[in-house]
Amino acid sequence: MEVYRTIAAIRAALQPLRTTGKKIGFVPTMGYLHEGHLSLVDIAKAHSDVVVMSIFVNPTQFGPNEDLERYPRDFARDEHLACERGTDFIFYPEVAEMYPEPFFTYVVTEKLSKVLCGVSRPTHFRGVTTVVAKLFNIIQPDVAVFGRKDAQQAIIIQQMVRDLNFPVKIILGPIVREPDGLAMSSRNVYLTPEERSQAPLIFQTLQEARQAVERGERNVATIRNLIETGIKRLPLARIDYIEIVDGENLQRVDEIHPGTFAAVAVYLGKTRLIDNQVLM
Amino acid sequence: MEVYRTIAAIRAALQPLRTTGKKIGFVPTMGYLHEGHLSLVDIAKAHSDVVVMSIFVNPTQFGPNEDLERYPRDFARDEHLACERGTDFIFYPEVAEMYPEPFFTYVVTEKLSKVLCGVSRPTHFRGVTTVVAKLFNIIQPDVAVFGRKDAQQAIIIQQMVRDLNFPVKIILGPIVREPDGLAMSSRNVYLTPEERSQAPLIFQTLQEARQAVERGERNVATIRNLIETGIKRLPLARIDYIEIVDGENLQRVDEIHPGTFAAVAVYLGKTRLIDNQVLM
Repeated sequence: MEVYRTIAAIRAALQPLRTTGKKIGFVPTMGYLHEGHLSLVDIAKAHSDVVVMSIFVNPTQFGPNEDLERYPRDFARDEHLACERGTDFIFYPEVAEMYPEPFFTYVVTEKLSKVLCGVSRPTHFRGVTTVVAKLFNIIQPDVAVFGRKDAQQAIIIQQMVRDLNFPVKIILGPIVREPDGLAMSSRNVYLTPEERSQAPLIFQTLQEARQAVERGERNVATIRNLIETGIKRLPLARIDYIEIVDGENLQRVDEIHPGTFAAVAVYLGKTRLIDNQVLM
Repeated sequence: MEVYRTIAAIRAALQPLRTTGKKIGFVPTMGYLHEGHLSLVDIAKAHSDVVVMSIFVNPTQFGPNEDLERYPRDFARDEHLACERGTDFIFYPEVAEMYPEPFFTYVVTEKLSKVLCGVSRPTHFRGVTTVVAKLFNIIQPDVAVFGRKDAQQAIIIQQMVRDLNFPVKIILGPIVREPDGLAMSSRNVYLTPEERSQAPLIFQTLQEARQAVERGERNVATIRNLIETGIKRLPLARIDYIEIVDGENLQRVDEIHPGTFAAVAVYLGKTRLIDNQVLM
């Protein structure tokens, strides 16, 4: 496995592969890797000849009062895990390499970025689409793999790729969960033991909602109440949002239909966790 | 010369050239070609093996009360002129091909897009950067050539390419003028004979400003007044802006220094003409 820290170096490393017709798979991450990230490497490997992972804690997707500074980082561990899993190249740039001054250009996917997480994190998705556009132009992958835990992000990136005609195929990987159901997240490390013990109830509640839909429930308010009641069983939880939305346009639905999913964001103490479940 | 109307078709046509190492030069236009556009084809040819021209009157760069509907179009003539000049491929898409519904994603270059033409045309440059990003992703050129008549556009595109790491080299072509000095523009066709006879005074005034700087004048207000007085000699002119700005960041300068240029936008009747001149 090779690690490059500059745009020029990773481009130079990938260029000969591209010209010899090798298919490049790409897994963008913010590091502090867990099995969710590594499962995306498996998917990338299955769809390409060479797998590039980026590890970059992207400042433009953090709001002013968010956790940019304390976001967990451990490059030595990431390097080991990525290599073990068969990653061929890591792109691990400094902030100054990605955002040299002056920097003025942003990619914005309107409408989709204003709902769900976009309400409490108004500039988050602008940061995500901007850095992903940059990374696509740097790596020029044939396929790129994103996880479904960040469902809104995945939908926004698919829309961006369609709208801006990026020559990249997007593949989504399923949510990877801890044995007790908690969706894997680098931020889970923030949780106190007490918060951690309560966290699986978010997933359990989403399962109860899905089961209710399986039993025939189609009323959005009923399903939403079921989730809200479920999460309120968590003494430490503060709900950011619970939304039942269309899987393509992220707009609220009137009735549960195929493709509808439930998305939640919940604070456990200071830690904001997100999860989602396709309902039908 | 080959003409393609769909994204899939132009991509399929260019793919074998790319894989055999041919360098692709790109000249994006809105058509109604004049010698300014064709001079960019010459430059593209000098820097590449294959020249692609796009002809697309991009709706997202026109404001609601602008001239999108009446913008001059003559594809048969454009096709002939482009072919004669040695263009290899024309990409000539429909609006629905470039902007299928739903379309949500825009590329915005902040700050630079808010000054000069950005004041009276607040969404213009967002449309330009968005369509150029799309075209870069569709054509994937090695070099792209833009004219210096649209100086602000050229500076914004260079910034966008740097900020988003497009793997494209930008080359700027000099302003091509009519024998009497009027900068060539597809919009010149709008001018009545009387307006057309007055139009060269814009260029003459910019030359007078440059000559004053050559003689040692460094005061911005003096130079600006000189241009304003000059243009006000035109009975049919209405000044949109006269600005003396830095050639890199487009901000107003306190004193004329190397790289400073004068940019003007003037209405002659209903027709808005722009021109610019490097002062030092």
